[in-house]
Amino acid sequence: MNGAESLVKTLLLSGVNVCFTNPGTSEMHFVAALDRHVDMRCILGLQENVVTGAADGYGRMADKPAATLLHTGPGLGNGLANLHNARKARTPIINVVGEHATYHIKHDAPLTADIEGIAKPVSDWVRTASDAKSVAAITAAAVQAARARTGSVATLILPADTAWEEADGPAKPLPAIRAQAPSDAAVEASAAALGSDGPALILMTGRALREDGLKMAGCIATATGAEVMAQMSNARLERGAGRFAVEKVPYPIDQAIERLSPFRHIILVGAKDPVAFFAYPDKPSRLAPEDCQVHTLSKPTEDGVKGLEMLCEYLGAEKAEPRLAVHEPPPLPTGVLGPESIAAAVSALMPENAIVTDEGITAGRRIFPLTVGAPPHSWLQVTGGSIGIGLPLAVGAAVACPERKVISLQADGSAMYTVQALWTQAREGLDVTTVIFSNRAYECLFIEMENVGVDNPGQSAHDMFEIDRPPLDWVALARGLGVQAEAVDDAEHFNAALTCGLAEPGPYLIEAQI
Amino acid sequence: MNGAESLVKTLLLSGVNVCFTNPGTSEMHFVAALDRHVDMRCILGLQENVVTGAADGYGRMADKPAATLLHTGPGLGNGLANLHNARKARTPIINVVGEHATYHIKHDAPLTADIEGIAKPVSDWVRTASDAKSVAAITAAAVQAARARTGSVATLILPADTAWEEADGPAKPLPAIRAQAPSDAAVEASAAALGSDGPALILMTGRALREDGLKMAGCIATATGAEVMAQMSNARLERGAGRFAVEKVPYPIDQAIERLSPFRHIILVGAKDPVAFFAYPDKPSRLAPEDCQVHTLSKPTEDGVKGLEMLCEYLGAEKAEPRLAVHEPPPLPTGVLGPESIAAAVSALMPENAIVTDEGITAGRRIFPLTVGAPPHSWLQVTGGSIGIGLPLAVGAAVACPERKVISLQADGSAMYTVQALWTQAREGLDVTTVIFSNRAYECLFIEMENVGVDNPGQSAHDMFEIDRPPLDWVALARGLGVQAEAVDDAEHFNAALTCGLAEPGPYLIEAQI
Repeated sequence: MNGAESLVKTLLLSGVNVCFTNPGTSEMHFVAALDRHVDMRCILGLQENVVTGAADGYGRMADKPAATLLHTGPGLGNGLANLHNARKARTPIINVVGEHATYHIKHDAPLTADIEGIAKPVSDWVRTASDAKSVAAITAAAVQAARARTGSVATLILPADTAWEEADGPAKPLPAIRAQAPSDAAVEASAAALGSDGPALILMTGRALREDGLKMAGCIATATGAEVMAQMSNARLERGAGRFAVEKVPYPIDQAIERLSPFRHIILVGAKDPVAFFAYPDKPSRLAPEDCQVHTLSKPTEDGVKGLEMLCEYLGAEKAEPRLAVHEPPPLPTGVLGPESIAAAVSALMPENAIVTDEGITAGRRIFPLTVGAPPHSWLQVTGGSIGIGLPLAVGAAVACPERKVISLQADGSAMYTVQALWTQAREGLDVTTVIFSNRAYECLFIEMENVGVDNPGQSAHDMFEIDRPPLDWVALARGLGVQAEAVDDAEHFNAALTCGLAEPGPYLIEAQI
Repeated sequence: MNGAESLVKTLLLSGVNVCFTNPGTSEMHFVAALDRHVDMRCILGLQENVVTGAADGYGRMADKPAATLLHTGPGLGNGLANLHNARKARTPIINVVGEHATYHIKHDAPLTADIEGIAKPVSDWVRTASDAKSVAAITAAAVQAARARTGSVATLILPADTAWEEADGPAKPLPAIRAQAPSDAAVEASAAALGSDGPALILMTGRALREDGLKMAGCIATATGAEVMAQMSNARLERGAGRFAVEKVPYPIDQAIERLSPFRHIILVGAKDPVAFFAYPDKPSRLAPEDCQVHTLSKPTEDGVKGLEMLCEYLGAEKAEPRLAVHEPPPLPTGVLGPESIAAAVSALMPENAIVTDEGITAGRRIFPLTVGAPPHSWLQVTGGSIGIGLPLAVGAAVACPERKVISLQADGSAMYTVQALWTQAREGLDVTTVIFSNRAYECLFIEMENVGVDNPGQSAHDMFEIDRPPLDWVALARGLGVQAEAVDDAEHFNAALTCGLAEPGPYLIEAQI
């Protein structure tokens, strides 16, 4: 068995059985090893941010890592932005990056690059295999690192000769490194804050936003009168009818400051002291009021669900009744097509247990609050602010949960970064209904320009923010990539298109001209 | 005047007047400054490898740097692969990368990333502005660095507050750092090698492949009997009728070793000791025979044209007659469509002074030798081995040379990495005729799999190398991005389509189903 085969076998022994790929010549032996192991599902992406973004979506929904297969430094570079997002989401991912044979690197062939240097800014763990016999052990360590605590990005660099030379065999999985429970002191301090004067906010992210965490947070809210919110961007939020509903901290800075202004205490559950997404002249970086005290129940790498359980018990809140969202399907919208009518249609037509990937940006922000009464569903966001993850995220979520419908709410400008993901959706027959918010602009940038104090954008600004010349024809693009599509420009046609897309077992794209 | 405006004015004073952009919120003041300077041409790309690849194409043809505008670490990451290519091409480029305001970075907002860390593997020069008043001086230093010697990639990181705070004014251009002439000793050693026993090869790249360098190399060849070749991948090669024609070192390793086997001396002009593109089991990394002596006339950072001039003079070869390629338009092809018939049609129909961007990969390799008798033209290649540069390269070349026709020879798999470039071609009305070699596979990978000793690729390998399920519909994709297109599957229809595309003053795409 060669190094590549020991790698694949070690991954499989560790329970990693999905590999999103975009291979090249230096990965040929790894591909050959994948060939001999049909229990490893290989999914091709035509651009690497599709590969890494899909691995992110998979990890968020499967709660275990997928592997990626990337071609040397530039291939890793092409997937860097969505690894940035994945790292901020704390998604477990194992990147396998091919490299020249160890002895070939010094010759500085065209593809030679500082792969470790490229990997480090987006990886929590980086290692380069030195020889074939060590590949299995390093692979087991990579899986352990990716799954450690609340999840992280591990990057394993595989020189071609360490893949093709003879190795010993696979390595057994290493023990799990679990997230620690928070300290009793942290629980006591949080309880004291909840019991003191002034309104308190429990600000959560990570696993605390799954059903059990939300339920306990809801109990604490009922018992103490505290409010509960999610941070601005979250890897995965369980919501809809029958669940304790939480708002998110708003993105627009003035709204965020206003929304947090009443609080005298903020208790962090995996979240960080809330800060503005961007800095703006004459506005603060921190969003909480200056006299607000910030307490940490659990750090991002700690077990927030356990923290909530401990706090719940400490407060004797287990028996309190959380206020749960009720199923309130709105009437189907009519007339003008816009974020509100799209939200109404999505809310009314969404099947139970759907997964929503939200890269709706300007238009999308208005969908979230309007879908609180929809059937229970998971909501996935861009966590690192790097747009171009929505379509790949939908790929990964659909691969992880083939029995669940994925609804991909997608801004047009953002979709263009990784439009290639539609092809993977078609190839794999993934059950994804994509809604493109076709406003033919980087609309957010007009708003942001105003926010930074620049009035009256001129011609260059219009040229850089508007993507209407030529207009993107999303129906043609989707068809070019093998995905059925239609364009609609009023609510009635949108309702019909969404009904049709949701009934379709494979991918379907709706260009919503808003 | 704020920092951003001092940056734009400094660029303009330094002769930099094209900016390829994909901006975000942190770059709003830079966008506003661009707005006030209409003499800076701003060109939007919908993905950052379009932006950086276009800057590469521009720099190769304009012989001066364009600026790029990228949005924080992930935006830079998205453009990394084509910066890798640009750096290997020694193309002058100035990246301006937006960053959070200096005081905001410590808050670790979602987009916070190690931008310098991401930039270093692909940049020869990296600086972060510390305050608005230093922006102008740093910008002048960035231009100097980009233009230094034979060209390099300079990355300037611009925190938002250094853009919006008050600055003093623009900085004057700094003195040029010119490439040095090689030493007399290097010239003498090269001359001695040419005069000694055994066949000699002059191996060139960089500026030596322009008309004057080629002419002198041709004189030396006639005078000494040496052969002259270009290295495997070159930023720009002037060729066609009336020019001294040079072969390139072949990509397939066995062909390359065979081709170099007769030589006892290799004289490097900007090139490096030739090495295999990839390592293969039981094959050497170096391509030259073991008993071949390698001499350096000029290093990659030295003035190779001056070196050839010195060598020519030393040898008294100035009066020798170089053998020049003659115009030999082949008859228009008929019948089956393949690389040979495409080459014949391109050769026959190419207008004088065209620019060919070659990312044809497997199919494309056969076009180069068959176009030696075409009218004079420039030939641009992928220099760093990272595919996905062809369509952006064509954008940049067309912007630099609006009076010249660009013919973009493009493999289908490679085109998919940066298909967004077609939209920029449409938006700017660029005079680019794209030929997609639609073989619906990463064909090179099947060949490479055999090369590394893996026979009989299995299902996973087929799944990862074939992109025919679903087939990419290039006509639909092009139309979706605003570009006229047609598909052809025989030589006669290809001739007609190419005639039509070349007659069109704007972009046109031909899907050549081979």
